[in-house]
Amino acid sequence: MVYLTRRERFCAAHRLFVAGWNDEKNMEIFGNCSNENWHGHNYILYVTIKGEPDPVTGMIINATELKKIIRSEVIEHLDHKNLNLDVGFMQGIMPTAENLVKIIWQRLEPHAKGFTLHRVRIYETENIYADYYGE
Amino acid sequence: MVYLTRRERFCAAHRLFVAGWNDEKNMEIFGNCSNENWHGHNYILYVTIKGEPDPVTGMIINATELKKIIRSEVIEHLDHKNLNLDVGFMQGIMPTAENLVKIIWQRLEPHAKGFTLHRVRIYETENIYADYYGE
Amino acid sequence: MVYLTRRERFCAAHRLFVAGWNDEKNMEIFGNCSNENWHGHNYILYVTIKGEPDPVTGMIINATELKKIIRSEVIEHLDHKNLNLDVGFMQGIMPTAENLVKIIWQRLEPHAKGFTLHRVRIYETENIYADYYGE
Amino acid sequence: MVYLTRRERFCAAHRLFVAGWNDEKNMEIFGNCSNENWHGHNYILYVTIKGEPDPVTGMIINATELKKIIRSEVIEHLDHKNLNLDVGFMQGIMPTAENLVKIIWQRLEPHAKGFTLHRVRIYETENIYADYYGE
Amino acid sequence: MVYLTRRERFCAAHRLFVAGWNDEKNMEIFGNCSNENWHGHNYILYVTIKGEPDPVTGMIINATELKKIIRSEVIEHLDHKNLNLDVGFMQGIMPTAENLVKIIWQRLEPHAKGFTLHRVRIYETENIYADYYGE
Amino acid sequence: MVYLTRRERFCAAHRLFVAGWNDEKNMEIFGNCSNENWHGHNYILYVTIKGEPDPVTGMIINATELKKIIRSEVIEHLDHKNLNLDVGFMQGIMPTAENLVKIIWQRLEPHAKGFTLHRVRIYETENIYADYYGE
Repeated sequence: MVYLTRRERFCAAHRLFVAGWNDEKNMEIFGNCSNENWHGHNYILYVTIKGEPDPVTGMIINATELKKIIRSEVIEHLDHKNLNLDVGFMQGIMPTAENLVKIIWQRLEPHAKGFTLHRVRIYETENIYADYYGE
Repeated sequence: MVYLTRRERFCAAHRLFVAGWNDEKNMEIFGNCSNENWHGHNYILYVTIKGEPDPVTGMIINATELKKIIRSEVIEHLDHKNLNLDVGFMQGIMPTAENLVKIIWQRLEPHAKGFTLHRVRIYETENIYADYYGE
Repeated sequence: MVYLTRRERFCAAHRLFVAGWNDEKNMEIFGNCSNENWHGHNYILYVTIKGEPDPVTGMIINATELKKIIRSEVIEHLDHKNLNLDVGFMQGIMPTAENLVKIIWQRLEPHAKGFTLHRVRIYETENIYADYYGE
Repeated sequence: MVYLTRRERFCAAHRLFVAGWNDEKNMEIFGNCSNENWHGHNYILYVTIKGEPDPVTGMIINATELKKIIRSEVIEHLDHKNLNLDVGFMQGIMPTAENLVKIIWQRLEPHAKGFTLHRVRIYETENIYADYYGE
Repeated sequence: MVYLTRRERFCAAHRLFVAGWNDEKNMEIFGNCSNENWHGHNYILYVTIKGEPDPVTGMIINATELKKIIRSEVIEHLDHKNLNLDVGFMQGIMPTAENLVKIIWQRLEPHAKGFTLHRVRIYETENIYADYYGE
Repeated sequence: MVYLTRRERFCAAHRLFVAGWNDEKNMEIFGNCSNENWHGHNYILYVTIKGEPDPVTGMIINATELKKIIRSEVIEHLDHKNLNLDVGFMQGIMPTAENLVKIIWQRLEPHAKGFTLHRVRIYETENIYADYYGE
């Protein structure tokens, strides 16, 4: 069993806030991440799959195929977007790194043919990242 | 003459678009950077000063002092903000990396006491950065 | 179950040596890490916690709260210090990366309220890092 | 139980192709990685071992000893080589990242004395890496 | 005057050797870089241009346009190639980092319309890079 | 004229303080960098030379030769040392990044045969670096 990880990137705006809370409460819980006019990040996504390398090709899956899946299911929907407003599958979901890794897992998992999805990792900044293993 | 560079970071939303153009024209010129609901970046700022190290302290300027200037004049105004909407000194200025380095230079230059401002560098992504030398 | 990792940094001096050994023996085992007048590193600390994101906030724990715990329990005690001489909770402990991750785990674990401590990672240089999972 | 990871690097040429396939088929499966005159990479290798730190030295294994094993068993055979042509233990093996981690594991595992080999990781580019845990 | 830098990458094989020298002489001068079956690198290219940002768009040149020029003139010719054998404009030129930056300058300079080419930088490894300013 | 830069690293302890000042004054000026029991850094050194690539070898200078000079003149004297106590050529010099780049320039410049020394850069942390051009 070998694990293969592919890195992709997307740049997006977001805002953390609870609509039913007033500004003071949102600021208390989310700090300046609740800025009403949004802020944004260069998100870095690492997708890890696992499987047996094919005895002929030496590959678990063609890396180009994996790239296509990640781009069509995730990157094209999130890159240069507002995570709160522009993304159908993020509606009603707070766009924290913790929730992003779960949502991205759900986007990718149905496409895991010939391999198993192992981990989704998102760096929000160089100091914070989240991981999800489907557990 | 020695040069000293300090790195700081800020996360912000922005959008590139000309108000007088229609969506097609904006998309043609700015691509997905013109997404109407914004997108964002983890900007990395490098400020380089030059001067003679003090013969007693070995420092051009106290690095803590330099950090304070950069934070109070730049970072506090840009971090977790919308560069188009939230920043007084960016009003009417297209928030490209090229313009950001010029604006940040103008913010810092009046505070260059005991040293000379040499260069302002901004990374917008790992693939693009701009430099300004006050020329 | 989602995992969240926060990065922090500290700069410290240390020396690897056994007091009961002579210089030759210390040099044989620890090489130039036993230099009697110390040397030092820019240590990079990654703390990983796990838990369920709150359904309202989308966060396992407020990242600001996690930062406060790491800084008050670890960084303030180690940053710009001598790991052999200046740190109460390191007395009698060889300041290797292997021991540092165990000690930092013990410092953080009692503060794991609302989340579980999963891993402590320390980079000593770009070429060496240690991990501890509390096992 | 503590985990220790050491980074090493090697620069090598390689080519992905199946000798029994024609150029079209190789290009279809391997893309430009099948370029007949080779291409190459700056590979980055991370070797992770685990064990109990020695109560006297605070080390699982002397890091210099670990470096020697990795260099003599792996790096000296792969650095500035052609992975398809120059490496005895790679004969008949497709030099993908997936196969490299398995082969490097087999090279290192017999030398795991006083520690357990835990993981071999290879970065082929900044966007792709493979992991093997001996499973 | 503002400077804008764009990063691109290419993976290639090469070999440093003088055809008229024997193996001992080549090994003496070029070390293991003269390995007869080639080796390779993940080259990182930074192209810096300078110019005045357009008062309307805030851009020196459309970054997409710059990317297209770099890719069509440089990357498509070098990526996943053998620098000694596969590249028309490298024939008869020793593929050192020093020569690469000069050649790439010559490839890009005729396309500098609306901006001035300022610097070409190539990282061959994380420890070595070359710069050329057209001087 | 081409510029070539080589990266090297050293780990060292240091302390910023003026012997004639009391602790309050040293703390006021140098902050926790004046900790009496030292602290330390993973310093990263970039040495840039310039010259004409040799028409036969394509190299300004043999990179191995450059590495030898940097190591014998600088790294061997600073690595795993105390910059205040252990280094003959640092006696009486405050070990700031600003002074380090000047001292290292003076160490290297007499060995510039067949090339010109252009710049010495030292990263003290990921947030601070100094440059010296011999001016």
